[in-house]
Amino acid sequence: MADTTPQSWDARATNSMFYGFTDLPSIRERGAVVLTHGEGPYVVDVEGKRYLDANSGLWNMVAGFDHPGLIEAAQAQYARFPGYHAFFGRMSDQTVMLSEKLIEVSPFETGKVFFTNSGSEANDTMVKMLWFMNKQRGMPTKRKIITRENAYHGVTVAAASMTGKPYNELFGLPLPEFVHVRCPHYWREALRGETEEEFTQRMADELDQTIRREGAQTIAAFVAEPVMGAGGVIPPSKGYFQAIAKVLKNHRIPFIADEVITGFGRTGNTWGCETYDFMPDAIISSKNLTAGFFPMGAVILGPELADTLQQVTDEVEEFPHGFTASGHPVGCAIALKAIDVVMNEGLADNVKALTPRFEEGLARLAEHPNIGEWRGKGFMGALEAVQDKATKTPFDAKLSVSERIANTCTDHGLICRPLGQSIVLCPPFIMTESQMDEMFDKLEKALNEVFKAIT
Amino acid sequence: MADTTPQSWDARATNSMFYGFTDLPSIRERGAVVLTHGEGPYVVDVEGKRYLDANSGLWNMVAGFDHPGLIEAAQAQYARFPGYHAFFGRMSDQTVMLSEKLIEVSPFETGKVFFTNSGSEANDTMVKMLWFMNKQRGMPTKRKIITRENAYHGVTVAAASMTGKPYNELFGLPLPEFVHVRCPHYWREALRGETEEEFTQRMADELDQTIRREGAQTIAAFVAEPVMGAGGVIPPSKGYFQAIAKVLKNHRIPFIADEVITGFGRTGNTWGCETYDFMPDAIISSKNLTAGFFPMGAVILGPELADTLQQVTDEVEEFPHGFTASGHPVGCAIALKAIDVVMNEGLADNVKALTPRFEEGLARLAEHPNIGEWRGKGFMGALEAVQDKATKTPFDAKLSVSERIANTCTDHGLICRPLGQSIVLCPPFIMTESQMDEMFDKLEKALNEVFKAIT
Repeated sequence: MADTTPQSWDARATNSMFYGFTDLPSIRERGAVVLTHGEGPYVVDVEGKRYLDANSGLWNMVAGFDHPGLIEAAQAQYARFPGYHAFFGRMSDQTVMLSEKLIEVSPFETGKVFFTNSGSEANDTMVKMLWFMNKQRGMPTKRKIITRENAYHGVTVAAASMTGKPYNELFGLPLPEFVHVRCPHYWREALRGETEEEFTQRMADELDQTIRREGAQTIAAFVAEPVMGAGGVIPPSKGYFQAIAKVLKNHRIPFIADEVITGFGRTGNTWGCETYDFMPDAIISSKNLTAGFFPMGAVILGPELADTLQQVTDEVEEFPHGFTASGHPVGCAIALKAIDVVMNEGLADNVKALTPRFEEGLARLAEHPNIGEWRGKGFMGALEAVQDKATKTPFDAKLSVSERIANTCTDHGLICRPLGQSIVLCPPFIMTESQMDEMFDKLEKALNEVFKAIT
Repeated sequence: MADTTPQSWDARATNSMFYGFTDLPSIRERGAVVLTHGEGPYVVDVEGKRYLDANSGLWNMVAGFDHPGLIEAAQAQYARFPGYHAFFGRMSDQTVMLSEKLIEVSPFETGKVFFTNSGSEANDTMVKMLWFMNKQRGMPTKRKIITRENAYHGVTVAAASMTGKPYNELFGLPLPEFVHVRCPHYWREALRGETEEEFTQRMADELDQTIRREGAQTIAAFVAEPVMGAGGVIPPSKGYFQAIAKVLKNHRIPFIADEVITGFGRTGNTWGCETYDFMPDAIISSKNLTAGFFPMGAVILGPELADTLQQVTDEVEEFPHGFTASGHPVGCAIALKAIDVVMNEGLADNVKALTPRFEEGLARLAEHPNIGEWRGKGFMGALEAVQDKATKTPFDAKLSVSERIANTCTDHGLICRPLGQSIVLCPPFIMTESQMDEMFDKLEKALNEVFKAIT
């Protein structure tokens, strides 16, 4: 029961904040959780209660909540140069150094970087870059963006239009120029008797048909997450990206990889496109880029897009776009350290080393009769609840099954995320074996309690 | 001449960064300016050259580039809790404290706060809030946003659509649902013989006619900066906001104040709406909110919008919107300190105290035959270059007069901003009398050099 005395943290939060992405019935019943600090992968609330955050904050706090090296990097840059922009050909040295580093660690031989403050802004910027480039090349109607159902690309008006979630209808979105194709989730979307290879081919054929229907000359890009994140951790069906890339190449349509979640170690490699062995034309990065220590996003343009965009910009003499804090020196100094911490100080290695244990844990819980599927890649995984395993029938939406499981986990000191009827786990990369066991033990307890109550 | 050896900072920057809001011919000729640190209102580049930044970074570094209190607040919060989100009813204590503080210092008796990472995202969020609210109230076509020519509201697809600058045409923007009315710049826009009062009435009449033409039932909001910033520092004509507010009230259309630049002291008061004595329905804040030390924006909803939006959200149980770093604990801790530093530690007082000296300096330079007008409010000012003062004829655009002046200032160790054919000054609030004199001396020297060369 929430403490609703006027001075309670819950009352203070509810009175002054307008909550986003928050299940209001849960909050009204349980109150807000107000946090003061963290210890490794744990966070601690105002009452001293500890939670193992299997959500990594929001996929992003991959080095935990008190990483000494990252804290030191942030503090040192605040003492050195605590803020600047990157307009008018002026920028901090850190901004230049991070730009170089991002090209170096990217899959591209050469390229160019544009900084934003979030993944939403990076996707929104990518759309504006394409519209700008195509207009200047005499193709003002080559503007449509193709994404997939269940894709998540952010929340600005344009990024939300790319996001393939039903809730965008509440805003009267997507905008007209955004087209969604099917989600490559074999378990849920396959036709009866369809093999995974056949399913993948159907996905590619559907994309091809969509492009022909809309007209390739009207399509600016196809954008996809290597593993869908907020859609419920959905890895692609086998061979999906190779089949898709072939279609896009035939139609000469740029392929943008939204690596906001997958970038920097989440799937065990630096990039999700490495894990799935495809080469995009540009990469959208955020989240792990700063290990959540600073709001930052980046558009990393591969050689072809970088050259074309630079050429048309040279002609008009200016690309009139940019955010005040684009390339903020503190964010850049933190990102330089975070890339090093994740890729070179054992965090990505730990993801690789513990992925088998993570998958075993997921597979074990998926034996439950009310778990229809486990799926995942590296340190991102999901368990999908079903009322009937054989028919894959979901629970009645009114039961809010995943919210109940997540709330029960919270009671047991574990934070995980309800998404649709799935429970998503995306642990920090610093997670130890025993912390992973704690995560699965608490989740199992919660699953048993909730399924017992509702079945 | 730019140093273009491969290892030069300029070459490194140009090779790896895609520049935004940058005049490329200037950069090609002069090279990038790469900065390492700052001292009070000065920044220092990699070659040790010092510049007095009369731009406050980008209007935002109002406490200068090494404010000890702000550095300490940032460092302390990094040690305490270096990152979290504000989804799912979980957030840091700092986030709650800043939300309360923002309502406390706002002009509203009650209200609610929603955090973003930038002013662009805050404006984009406001648009989504209005679309969401109106759709849920059975008015799905009440979506149009009215702003003014020359207005600047940011660069996301939606925020750029609000921005009334010709360059957005390069992106095929604005989107269809964004309507622009005239800029209330009396000196430039008045008809021959029109008094300022008549001009203001014409602006209000035009707004009224626009609303009637489009249909009030299709208009979600009117959004305006109290003083237009990136439009070239344009204060409203006399009585403008009172006249506008009356029209909006007649049509029951919300009035949103974009206080990204004017908020927290720029015009001498906490808010620009205080300075111009009007009451908006919501405030968009960013920049000074963290004194540029962290990327942050906020939508501050007044009582009516907060209540209505909360009501319709309660019905659908969730507002499906939010950014990963919305309400980041470090940003919130910095903002709490920045508000205190600016409003209570003498910075806003300094703006008030030195505004007469600032205005005298602008007025003195405006005596030059090639300065058509000086204008400003508090610590934001502009000098508009003209070829002919009597006829207000601008210079040939090919002369890039304001870029030349700004580049010459840079040579003399002064950073100021070219906007259209104006030079904009928006000094940090910590500027002393002698630094202000240095600013005007350097600018005068540059003006004389450039006007001598081109007239």
